[in-house]
Amino acid sequence: MASKLIAIVAGVGPGTGAAVAKKFAASYPVVLLARNPDSYEPLAKEINGGGGKAIGISTDISNSQSVKDAFAKIEQEFGKDVAAAAIFNASGRFQRKPFLELTEEDFNVGLDVSAKGAFLFSQATLPLLQKGKASSQHPPSLIFTGATASVKGSAQMSSFATGKFALRALTQSLAREFGPQGIHVSHAIIDGVIDIPRTKEWMKDAGPEAKISADGIADAYWHLHTQPRTTFTWEIDIRPAVEKW
Amino acid sequence: MASKLIAIVAGVGPGTGAAVAKKFAASYPVVLLARNPDSYEPLAKEINGGGGKAIGISTDISNSQSVKDAFAKIEQEFGKDVAAAAIFNASGRFQRKPFLELTEEDFNVGLDVSAKGAFLFSQATLPLLQKGKASSQHPPSLIFTGATASVKGSAQMSSFATGKFALRALTQSLAREFGPQGIHVSHAIIDGVIDIPRTKEWMKDAGPEAKISADGIADAYWHLHTQPRTTFTWEIDIRPAVEKW
Amino acid sequence: MASKLIAIVAGVGPGTGAAVAKKFAASYPVVLLARNPDSYEPLAKEINGGGGKAIGISTDISNSQSVKDAFAKIEQEFGKDVAAAAIFNASGRFQRKPFLELTEEDFNVGLDVSAKGAFLFSQATLPLLQKGKASSQHPPSLIFTGATASVKGSAQMSSFATGKFALRALTQSLAREFGPQGIHVSHAIIDGVIDIPRTKEWMKDAGPEAKISADGIADAYWHLHTQPRTTFTWEIDIRPAVEKW
Amino acid sequence: MASKLIAIVAGVGPGTGAAVAKKFAASYPVVLLARNPDSYEPLAKEINGGGGKAIGISTDISNSQSVKDAFAKIEQEFGKDVAAAAIFNASGRFQRKPFLELTEEDFNVGLDVSAKGAFLFSQATLPLLQKGKASSQHPPSLIFTGATASVKGSAQMSSFATGKFALRALTQSLAREFGPQGIHVSHAIIDGVIDIPRTKEWMKDAGPEAKISADGIADAYWHLHTQPRTTFTWEIDIRPAVEKW
Repeated sequence: MASKLIAIVAGVGPGTGAAVAKKFAASYPVVLLARNPDSYEPLAKEINGGGGKAIGISTDISNSQSVKDAFAKIEQEFGKDVAAAAIFNASGRFQRKPFLELTEEDFNVGLDVSAKGAFLFSQATLPLLQKGKASSQHPPSLIFTGATASVKGSAQMSSFATGKFALRALTQSLAREFGPQGIHVSHAIIDGVIDIPRTKEWMKDAGPEAKISADGIADAYWHLHTQPRTTFTWEIDIRPAVEKW
Repeated sequence: MASKLIAIVAGVGPGTGAAVAKKFAASYPVVLLARNPDSYEPLAKEINGGGGKAIGISTDISNSQSVKDAFAKIEQEFGKDVAAAAIFNASGRFQRKPFLELTEEDFNVGLDVSAKGAFLFSQATLPLLQKGKASSQHPPSLIFTGATASVKGSAQMSSFATGKFALRALTQSLAREFGPQGIHVSHAIIDGVIDIPRTKEWMKDAGPEAKISADGIADAYWHLHTQPRTTFTWEIDIRPAVEKW
Repeated sequence: MASKLIAIVAGVGPGTGAAVAKKFAASYPVVLLARNPDSYEPLAKEINGGGGKAIGISTDISNSQSVKDAFAKIEQEFGKDVAAAAIFNASGRFQRKPFLELTEEDFNVGLDVSAKGAFLFSQATLPLLQKGKASSQHPPSLIFTGATASVKGSAQMSSFATGKFALRALTQSLAREFGPQGIHVSHAIIDGVIDIPRTKEWMKDAGPEAKISADGIADAYWHLHTQPRTTFTWEIDIRPAVEKW
Repeated sequence: MASKLIAIVAGVGPGTGAAVAKKFAASYPVVLLARNPDSYEPLAKEINGGGGKAIGISTDISNSQSVKDAFAKIEQEFGKDVAAAAIFNASGRFQRKPFLELTEEDFNVGLDVSAKGAFLFSQATLPLLQKGKASSQHPPSLIFTGATASVKGSAQMSSFATGKFALRALTQSLAREFGPQGIHVSHAIIDGVIDIPRTKEWMKDAGPEAKISADGIADAYWHLHTQPRTTFTWEIDIRPAVEKW
């Protein structure tokens, strides 16, 4: 792996984050950010054992000090190396609850991660992506994972949806500001259940292809990363073929 | 004025809020919420002097204790009276700034008012609107003021746009949850400059009709309020005839 | 009725068209366009019997010669009188059919009325609305009736949805071109079943308010018509409070 | 090239169509449809000369008999071979003209190609794609080229926009109907000027990357084609990094 440029993935767990990290690890050293070391340790081991390079850093993405500390460690580890890609895959807890039963804390869960966390991650990674531009084969990419709730505010879902709408606004604003600077900002609307250990028992009757493949998402993110400056995609939607929408 | 039902307007100042308050004051006693008494005192005086009834309460709409205090005063003042309409017209500071120059505090300005403030206002008013249903001539209404930034994340506008996107998500979620209960939740996309004292010198070359009339907005909100349960509008856009969009 | 300005309604039948015509007939002589005289004759009788003025003209709105003939009759009847409002309420047949079973004729049904018909109606009425501007109390209005299918292409609904999407495009383009000239172009997304004789037996279990009131739509259209040039709405959505969306 | 499955491209010219055809020709024999042989002959020669296989057929995509004839030739040429991919890249003439100056024929230009043409192409290719499913490595794909005007009806652009909105409706309806059958239907919003011979002199001041690369579009379409059934994208947008939007 000749590249000294790195990829940084926030929100690594046994699903999209892991699949994306493995995909990008084929080309770049990857930094895995997650609150809990259990979320990144097996993955870092797998990548490092397979000839790639990965380090994990415990990070609370919605806490500015924690994010600062994480990026100080990244600089320490990779010296003057800078970023070719940054993927924000963190998400507040999905909750469905009658609106009048939400506590203020419940409501803030979505915004803390999807708005504040995405803001902190973007501010930390964009300077690294700007510096990465000179030596990156592909335009440096900042990719965000959205959801159905990014474009639809369902009943009893205001916490999740406000966070995801806000995230989408942020990514559109960043795409417009940083696109002309050669940084590729994208947003993926993941519309459906992702096939991960936690959802193993879900939707069994709907057949083996009713859930979204995390590897398929990773392939899409990689495609976005490889798009040239003449051909930037801001937004894609992704869902299983059988999904009702 | 026979009605014992009240209307509550958050975000009262010399523009949309004042125009809406005056419009609804023709039918209901109105409660005026604003951070600064200067924002509501002349208006309350005008309404009370003109045969209506208005009280102002200093409220920081993004602070839960302040909102609680305000609604305690509302109950004290109007006894068992309840609400026919609640209008959320508060807005975070409009700011255009390169993303990497935003402080965390800058970024939070939009979300504090447009997401957290709207959440607190909705939680406080929805129970009053539910109780108002029995005696209200029109379906009790909860109306929110949005902006161009509710559907477009422009460059260097991420703070304002994340707040406004989040607000729109909240209103759509509430419309879906409370519509079937007979509460009418609406969202207005105000696309243009509103004609208020602060904008007097703006866009002078564009002619006298290049700015949105606050009274026109108030008329639209009143129309939304009078829609029957068979004919609810969730979203309208409003702009000057000459606006480029 | 002092006004010499007229309102023209295309797509009159026992539903929205009739309700809109009656609403506008309180202020203007109305012209009722429908393919079949049975659709407008009882309505014209009712309006004329109630102190208003209405004439019906058999018109195939998707046929240019038929539209030309209709507007020649309008000129003959109302002399130099011109239009304050024009409402396009015609619609192709709603059909749900597997795509591969659609004939070319089936497919064209939606576009013939919703695209070509709306084009012909707009070209015929816009010059009358432009001339009406000088003496009209409210900005002359051109209002179009859309549907859920204006923003959602459901499975097996391509004929209806292509027509309705096309209609929405037309109205947005017209709003942008003619708004600055003082003509108010609006589009209403009617999302639900309208309560008319034909739908009497539908959705009986959902309660008396599960269907949209045609009078409520007419009130909304009248509100749009009365908006001043400083406060134009291009699009509203309308649905029953209990509608799932 | 082991595959007996073919790819069919409608709307081949010296731009997106040619780039897409060359991209897919690396994996499949390609059929090139265009009204004028000049549009496909040099391309067919280039593909055939480079080890691929291409045939061109003169087709008026908005004429049902012409489309029938073309697909009869396809069957004759490729026997029982069936399709892995079909790309609709045809487009009505882009025209900007005051609405009241449009002839009925002008207005129909957009719909004839983008609605009727897309309908005829879809009806002809979907049965071939359904039969291709058994032996295709990737889910058979039906991909449509849209434009900015697919989601925005600009002033004086009603002909182009009604066609493009209608096309988008069709593709969404088809995606919902045929997705569950394993056919992947996608729509690409091409937002900007494509870099082709005809646009060579355009936007010279904006720099070498201000126009969209047709090869970049072809890469995106190929990525869409390779998505598995668990990970279908219906819509992507594509624009140059420097585009204002």
